[in-house]
Amino acid sequence: MLKVKPLPVDTLRENVLVLSRRCSALRPERISGSRKVEVRAGGRVLFANIVIAESDELVGPDEAGLTMPLFRRLGAAAGADVDIAPARPPESLDWVRRKVNGATLDEKALAAIVDDLVTHAYSDMEVAAFLISCASFMTADETLAMTQAMIASGSRLRWDRPLVVDKHCIGGIPGNRTSLVVAPIVAAHGLLFPKTSSRAITSPAGTADTMEVMARVELNEDEMRAVVDRCGACIVWGGKVDLSPADDVLISVERPLGVDTAEQMVASILSKKAAAGSTHLVIDLPLGPSAKVRNTNEALRLRKLFEFVGSRLGLTMEIVISDGGQPIGRGVGPALEARDVRAVLENAPDAPVDLREKSIMLAGRLLEFDPALRGGQGAARARELLESGAAARKMDQIIEAQGPPPCKSELGSLTYDVVARLDGWVQDVDCERIRSVARLAGAPTDVGAGLDLFKRKGEPVRAGEPLYRIYGVDPHDFGFAREAADEDPGYKVVGA
Amino acid sequence: MLKVKPLPVDTLRENVLVLSRRCSALRPERISGSRKVEVRAGGRVLFANIVIAESDELVGPDEAGLTMPLFRRLGAAAGADVDIAPARPPESLDWVRRKVNGATLDEKALAAIVDDLVTHAYSDMEVAAFLISCASFMTADETLAMTQAMIASGSRLRWDRPLVVDKHCIGGIPGNRTSLVVAPIVAAHGLLFPKTSSRAITSPAGTADTMEVMARVELNEDEMRAVVDRCGACIVWGGKVDLSPADDVLISVERPLGVDTAEQMVASILSKKAAAGSTHLVIDLPLGPSAKVRNTNEALRLRKLFEFVGSRLGLTMEIVISDGGQPIGRGVGPALEARDVRAVLENAPDAPVDLREKSIMLAGRLLEFDPALRGGQGAARARELLESGAAARKMDQIIEAQGPPPCKSELGSLTYDVVARLDGWVQDVDCERIRSVARLAGAPTDVGAGLDLFKRKGEPVRAGEPLYRIYGVDPHDFGFAREAADEDPGYKVVGA
Repeated sequence: MLKVKPLPVDTLRENVLVLSRRCSALRPERISGSRKVEVRAGGRVLFANIVIAESDELVGPDEAGLTMPLFRRLGAAAGADVDIAPARPPESLDWVRRKVNGATLDEKALAAIVDDLVTHAYSDMEVAAFLISCASFMTADETLAMTQAMIASGSRLRWDRPLVVDKHCIGGIPGNRTSLVVAPIVAAHGLLFPKTSSRAITSPAGTADTMEVMARVELNEDEMRAVVDRCGACIVWGGKVDLSPADDVLISVERPLGVDTAEQMVASILSKKAAAGSTHLVIDLPLGPSAKVRNTNEALRLRKLFEFVGSRLGLTMEIVISDGGQPIGRGVGPALEARDVRAVLENAPDAPVDLREKSIMLAGRLLEFDPALRGGQGAARARELLESGAAARKMDQIIEAQGPPPCKSELGSLTYDVVARLDGWVQDVDCERIRSVARLAGAPTDVGAGLDLFKRKGEPVRAGEPLYRIYGVDPHDFGFAREAADEDPGYKVVGA
Repeated sequence: MLKVKPLPVDTLRENVLVLSRRCSALRPERISGSRKVEVRAGGRVLFANIVIAESDELVGPDEAGLTMPLFRRLGAAAGADVDIAPARPPESLDWVRRKVNGATLDEKALAAIVDDLVTHAYSDMEVAAFLISCASFMTADETLAMTQAMIASGSRLRWDRPLVVDKHCIGGIPGNRTSLVVAPIVAAHGLLFPKTSSRAITSPAGTADTMEVMARVELNEDEMRAVVDRCGACIVWGGKVDLSPADDVLISVERPLGVDTAEQMVASILSKKAAAGSTHLVIDLPLGPSAKVRNTNEALRLRKLFEFVGSRLGLTMEIVISDGGQPIGRGVGPALEARDVRAVLENAPDAPVDLREKSIMLAGRLLEFDPALRGGQGAARARELLESGAAARKMDQIIEAQGPPPCKSELGSLTYDVVARLDGWVQDVDCERIRSVARLAGAPTDVGAGLDLFKRKGEPVRAGEPLYRIYGVDPHDFGFAREAADEDPGYKVVGA
């Protein structure tokens, strides 16, 4: 038994335990083969990686140094007894190894893996091994079993209403912030739209990141319910509500790896939506040469996978394959995208037409889930709610109910215009490159970083005319983004 | 610019940098998105993960706290200037992502990945993503290009002799320590056998682990050459000689993951062997229901992959598909396997027959690379060298030249006999389970831990009669091994 010594060191997501080289309870030099230990105190067990202190200043031989995340999660007091033992590798890793070797996993195996993911029993490299093994091959049944296990791993919201709608885009198209326009339209009509959204995984901004420019998004379940009761809708970050927590663990590894596969996407999205209590769902699959989905076959395959899993979960779904040929709207990055959303809701004359029209189309599909609305009238009703200002008023109500954002978000003060090198017209805009430059510029970490796109596909340009402007906050990041844009701006301009 | 402050904290393999929450040069809270920074001092650049100190005791706002591995690797003095910048993700990760998405990589892409592996630019999860993406699909050309890039990534030994032999087993069979018998036989004949061996990856003992029970194995290149000049052979750990360092990085992730694929195996083995200057190679592929290779098709496929890559590297190779139906010898774990090797070399009456005969067969194949030896006479010559004591004398010479082992290795004092539950005979011995129980017991970390097998396949047993004995050093590990053996001993005993 060692004594807890809290150490004022923030190891971010990772549980790190500091032991003395002379530690009496354990021989740290032999633990180093695996690094991973189980830390037990007051009935809780957590996994942690150890590091070894060579001097007694940090921790004595009878102490266990708990870095901040570990100390917080373990919940034991300073000086309390703590027991350390070498961690037995989670048994479900055997299933991961079989998957790596080409096996197909059943419900039991996937549930065991998901359970171990949720308790953080896997190291990052083990999570990566599982993810990538699934990326190479995963059956529809495996995807369904995985989704069900993920739903079961967390809380589940219930709304006591027969019709709870939601809308989700699989992402990949910079600037595509339709949810923030669709939600107030649909709620203004009277449908329940309790939206839990995610932060960016591999994009320059997630719906939650952009909403956070306008309102607080880190609401717990009670706060979220209060907003929905009052407004019929909310747009909050899902992370506080403990929906499909296994998904959060997977995403925490997918994000730095920049990996996003069809099966994980379906499991991630549908587990979150089912856990959030949605009954009717519109899913937007943008299709384009640099979108996540690049050809019709792939889009149809993904649609069928969504339908297969969704129907078995009891969801009514409509999968919309939309034009993903270029970014939507003009802004890329949280603050710039929020600006576009505002312009559309306020019917500003210069509001991006593509963002407005796509939002109306998607809102129309959702509205047609309403049995009271005649078939084919959804889009007209959506346009009416937008143009009348009803949607804008609803958005203001939602923002007021959620509360003010945690910090002011101003556009980055560093700017750089990427210009056309010749007279001609824009033949192509590469979504992947635009996303990459915007992320290098600092989005979404810096909410004021990103790109403001001045030109769309097919538009004429003159040599020297700006194609887009990079906004940056941090000089390092801004420099990376400039370099990247100079190397390949993501715009293909051809001579007229 | 920050000032270097060495911190007496051993973070094992990982480069960890400690920055103050109030650090003047950087905003640690925004770095936390990626955690990874570049650390520059005196012309060197290293990648490190940051953690954040909340109090000034550990590091001040103008200091960069370098934990021990980072301090050692960077080679800057305390108080020296050090520059910290957010790490730009290695560009070769784009290739990894393409591989995850099903692409085939060319030489350039694989060389870029290998270069970034060697400079530790990849995090463990990124290494895992690369490994597992290759596990799912990798062409023979990719395997060749990978092997060539791995050879180029490190040192290359040259021996100025037309015939430099080596022998390698792909592993998976507990106790299969033939190299330690083959090397002295072949060297006693006069062939050059400069063996660099590995420590265990997923097994209870590697050749280097077992040799270390008898002699020092951590020799640098000059020391290794001196031993080979004197004895015609050596058996050292390859890690000190910087052969195929990319392989070491891959293995450092394969090991905890317990993943070992055909393509990585071929690239790993052949890159090490080619870099070690071998010209003629015997590769042992044990085939059995619980071996690494489980059916003839798989064995043939692996053989062809070895031949494809090896021939393009200019190696003369003989691939031996051997009986992998059960463990070889009686001991499993470094000290117990060393005991078996000694018994065979000393022609002890109770020496394990299977270890002796397999070693003679493999040594015979190697001896037949000698143009002076008539076809078919290799095995007879090998037997002669073993039975005459020439091999034992050669081993003593090698051991003396390499020097004494770093520490005494006694058999573990904790023992537990796993007994048969009924009268009958041993129908099957599960190599994978035996390996797993021996590893749980502490092998290879504890050299004195492991299993001593009393029964072989086909032998009769009585209820209560011991099948094997578990040796342990650490009570925790020993307990795990007992539990696992009670659950499933790895022996299938059926009634007579």
